[in-house]
Amino acid sequence: MPSPAGPTPPDGPVPTGFTAEWLRGEGADADVVISSRVRLARNLADEPFPGRASAAQKKKVLGLCRPAVLDIPGHTMVWIDLHDTSPFERTLLMERHLISKQHAKGKAKAGESTPEGSPRAVAVAADERFSVMVNEEDHLRLQAIRSGLALRQAWEDADAADDAIESHVELAFSPRFGYVTACPTNVGTGLRMSVMMHLPALRLMGDIEKVKRAAADMNLAVRGFYGEHSDASGDFYQLSNQATLGKSERIILRELQDEIIPRVIEFERAARKTLADKRRTLIEDQVYRALGLLTHARMISTEDAMQGLSMVRLGSTAGVLPQLDRALIGQLMLMVQPGHLQRLVGQAEQERRMVARATLLRQRLA
Amino acid sequence: MPSPAGPTPPDGPVPTGFTAEWLRGEGADADVVISSRVRLARNLADEPFPGRASAAQKKKVLGLCRPAVLDIPGHTMVWIDLHDTSPFERTLLMERHLISKQHAKGKAKAGESTPEGSPRAVAVAADERFSVMVNEEDHLRLQAIRSGLALRQAWEDADAADDAIESHVELAFSPRFGYVTACPTNVGTGLRMSVMMHLPALRLMGDIEKVKRAAADMNLAVRGFYGEHSDASGDFYQLSNQATLGKSERIILRELQDEIIPRVIEFERAARKTLADKRRTLIEDQVYRALGLLTHARMISTEDAMQGLSMVRLGSTAGVLPQLDRALIGQLMLMVQPGHLQRLVGQAEQERRMVARATLLRQRLA
Repeated sequence: MPSPAGPTPPDGPVPTGFTAEWLRGEGADADVVISSRVRLARNLADEPFPGRASAAQKKKVLGLCRPAVLDIPGHTMVWIDLHDTSPFERTLLMERHLISKQHAKGKAKAGESTPEGSPRAVAVAADERFSVMVNEEDHLRLQAIRSGLALRQAWEDADAADDAIESHVELAFSPRFGYVTACPTNVGTGLRMSVMMHLPALRLMGDIEKVKRAAADMNLAVRGFYGEHSDASGDFYQLSNQATLGKSERIILRELQDEIIPRVIEFERAARKTLADKRRTLIEDQVYRALGLLTHARMISTEDAMQGLSMVRLGSTAGVLPQLDRALIGQLMLMVQPGHLQRLVGQAEQERRMVARATLLRQRLA
Repeated sequence: MPSPAGPTPPDGPVPTGFTAEWLRGEGADADVVISSRVRLARNLADEPFPGRASAAQKKKVLGLCRPAVLDIPGHTMVWIDLHDTSPFERTLLMERHLISKQHAKGKAKAGESTPEGSPRAVAVAADERFSVMVNEEDHLRLQAIRSGLALRQAWEDADAADDAIESHVELAFSPRFGYVTACPTNVGTGLRMSVMMHLPALRLMGDIEKVKRAAADMNLAVRGFYGEHSDASGDFYQLSNQATLGKSERIILRELQDEIIPRVIEFERAARKTLADKRRTLIEDQVYRALGLLTHARMISTEDAMQGLSMVRLGSTAGVLPQLDRALIGQLMLMVQPGHLQRLVGQAEQERRMVARATLLRQRLA
């Protein structure tokens, strides 16, 4: 992977702050809920889906979408042409949950391969609470994200942006099915609501599989920290709705925000209480071992760092390490990711990144 | 297992100090060699081996041996009738390497079962450098032990004691085979010399199997921290001669003390140097992770504690943790054993022992 020359590469279009909205550790139920996300899939009428479009057609879509996206009220949007960025910058955006892995790669159609991928963009609000991918699987993918359990606010934000965009461009809409999307699983509302949850006590109690089965019964998908196909790094699980057809946005929202997620939250809290009441030593042992690891290791993998951070986050909410700040832990969850580490140490082989990760953790948690 | 009533059981005949000779961390080559041990198997003439003797016959052997053993010059010997001790006291003696596991159990013959086992004893020198088991597999098993590589001194000590005993009692000796023992593998010299080695760098380099194969080629046995059938807890390996017949004591001594063990020491030192020169970060990481574990865990198993202590011992000799005292680490290696912990916390279920072990380690390593 190419990378900037210097040891501290310029940030380019990527925000420099470490306060990714979704990792602030604030908002409702932040002891269990990391963040809430609403995503809307939309397509322009009369333009081929990105998967079938030529480079020229994709550029046309970028041109049509750009003014619409930049004009969304209530946000200061920054437009980034991803085919003009380095893989390193795209990794940063992906690690900050502003673009998908697929959008970072930007795989062009056969016969169109370019190292930077096909014409595509992302527009990011300065506070990172809102972003729009252009020419991902659909022409437009709007994402509103909030710290804590706040699907309603995220939904209102995405819905308002959707209205604003619709006033600029004509969207593909079928009176019978609703919004038309590249993949049939998104047809209808084009809506995906997801909640990133921190479920360490359920894992310690051996109850994670129960949660997964219950989620499947309720037609929810359970994914890892970095979405589809990613592992549940550090006990972080992303729960999201599967059905986009036949249920209104209001019903999906109410089911998730008011019924299902609160039940999982209560399940995790009950597990924490059981641990605190009956297995106090076990929970303290796990939390302090993790702290010992994070403050002593001289080289550490992303996976081990995330698992350690998961345990100290549990400690910070369970009264074992009350002095530890959740926002700091959230920052570190982002900073230990490979791309963000590369920003600190420059291009480096894996061992040097592991050393930098361990140094960072020791300094910040000292 | 029965145990004394109070939380701090009386020491009874077991020494109270924590300075088991073999764990002092002193003597030659103490960076790699924990201790050197010489054991002589001897039997009285005209008495049946313990495995074939009745309780009455065993008592007779105790009576014959006691004055001989207590009269050994140069040592202040304490006689302990093991069938009059508690299992707890015998566990302490075993953990201190003063009696074997088999001798602690003292399994009586069929039809003679008593909870405390059959008539048997151990005599222990006040400094724990010398001890004699009576009615183990053989009537007499003399053991001289020294910190560091000191087989010659241990041999001289055992040899002098052997002469002293022989002036009191008649030993079973065959002009053709040498000393007669219960098990044919000990016939001849009745000698076993063993060296407890600390080989963490060879393990980290993946070379332990090489050492084991080489040891087997040289007709050496490789055992764990607590002898036969025990695992190599914390990278501690006990190397000992197998042949007792057809080689003189002098030859066995010279081969081990001057040839074989120095080669293994050099092999381990070379591995440490390679790690220090080329994998400095790896060795620091392993040592500091272990320190983090030992100073943070709230409950810890014997096995994990030993592995951690092995790594910090490596750190203390490899310049990573120069302030750490080897004698302290040796003390802790003994104190984390189940029996020694029980002396601190009284009879306790396993979880409470694990908590006590972690507390002890945190306090001593703070």
